[in-house]
Amino acid sequence: MLNPGSLTVIGLGPGSPAQRTPEVEAALAEATDLVGYAPYVARVPHRPGLYRHASDNRVELDRARHALQLAEAGARVAVVSGGDAGVFAMASAVFEALEAGDPAWRALDIRVLPGISAMFAAAARIGAPLGHDFCAISLSDNLKPWEVIQHRLLAAALGGFVMALYNPLSRARPWQLGAAFTLLRQHLPGTVPVIFATAVTRPDERITVTTLAEADPALADMRTLVMVGTAATRLLPRPGGAAPWVYSPRSVPAS
Amino acid sequence: MLNPGSLTVIGLGPGSPAQRTPEVEAALAEATDLVGYAPYVARVPHRPGLYRHASDNRVELDRARHALQLAEAGARVAVVSGGDAGVFAMASAVFEALEAGDPAWRALDIRVLPGISAMFAAAARIGAPLGHDFCAISLSDNLKPWEVIQHRLLAAALGGFVMALYNPLSRARPWQLGAAFTLLRQHLPGTVPVIFATAVTRPDERITVTTLAEADPALADMRTLVMVGTAATRLLPRPGGAAPWVYSPRSVPAS
Repeated sequence: MLNPGSLTVIGLGPGSPAQRTPEVEAALAEATDLVGYAPYVARVPHRPGLYRHASDNRVELDRARHALQLAEAGARVAVVSGGDAGVFAMASAVFEALEAGDPAWRALDIRVLPGISAMFAAAARIGAPLGHDFCAISLSDNLKPWEVIQHRLLAAALGGFVMALYNPLSRARPWQLGAAFTLLRQHLPGTVPVIFATAVTRPDERITVTTLAEADPALADMRTLVMVGTAATRLLPRPGGAAPWVYSPRSVPAS
Repeated sequence: MLNPGSLTVIGLGPGSPAQRTPEVEAALAEATDLVGYAPYVARVPHRPGLYRHASDNRVELDRARHALQLAEAGARVAVVSGGDAGVFAMASAVFEALEAGDPAWRALDIRVLPGISAMFAAAARIGAPLGHDFCAISLSDNLKPWEVIQHRLLAAALGGFVMALYNPLSRARPWQLGAAFTLLRQHLPGTVPVIFATAVTRPDERITVTTLAEADPALADMRTLVMVGTAATRLLPRPGGAAPWVYSPRSVPAS
């Protein structure tokens, strides 16, 4: 008999329902069980027949295993992340749990639905800072050694990539963003634009544009995405006192 | 008198309306003028009162200037791109044209609305290949010297980034993807997974998972996104003959 259970890994986008896709709304409407980090589960409205399994941060693999067990037992499970589910979020954890877990889980109906990632939502608010080659780096050293992060920051700086820095700091990791700025200042001009984008599309959205020389890690919290431009990234004043537009030109002139 | 014109730069997502956000649909419903590369303009249904300005590829700056002129004349202009508007698409061109153009344009009501990018749509179809640090590189040397692209491929390989390769080749640029594979084979194991994802979410969607050693550029066309994993990227067989799941674990063990 075919197992009726399913597991859908969902990217909820940055926050506003206006940036959530119809296929995500449809999957949420069909789910029997909602699994995720508590603040993301809280974004999905209550309705009868939807069981909520909210968990703490930093237990991604336990959460993924729990979701697979629920699906194996016949539930239609939605695993929710903010932004895109495949970017420093739950999709990778689900496949890691799938690989290590009960072989029967492999026959489950599993899908991943993309979402508007934090970096693209933040970039759109301020112009087109990711307009040329770019990279995304998580500054969390919970899952990888700090030396790997330093190595990647250096490769990105020397390679001329715009950088989107995820998980810049938290109460448990207060120094990582400052250390990243210190490293980047040794390899990039101090005039390179830096953007702090917090809670994009949510009521307390806050966006600050500054420079690498002046970037203050205190502008970031757990909900902040930090973008670091390149020497090519440009600022364009906006009338009315708004933060300037920031864009990275698509073209690199032949030298 | 306030100019009633506006310019909204829109990411249509990979193709399916199920992956298009409500704010994008609302902006399309309000537009008087649609500006973009012809295949993207063609994705927006006809309706009375919507003027269509479809243009050829490789004229992004002309197209951006035209859109700004229409907005300055009072139109509500939607500039459409596939995927996300800020990723190798029209947002950066609009700000470049804005900076170089009529100072009066700076007072226009300009917005950028993000979309589901090709790389996240493709990644979701196949698992979570972008599950750890990653980068996006355009292989088009129309806008930058090939030497810059080589330098960035090398930085990405040595840095341990998963790569999403945009604009892998076209009739006018037939050799770039092959040259990129040749370069990457000198620095990465031949077993590294490579994904060719063409026309994701569209009726002719085609996804192939292979290895760097065996990757054949002939599997790509203009509509293909190519992803190159790292030595950490894993394959997970799926039952029923589907392509295997591909995921990049979030964690890097301490060495």
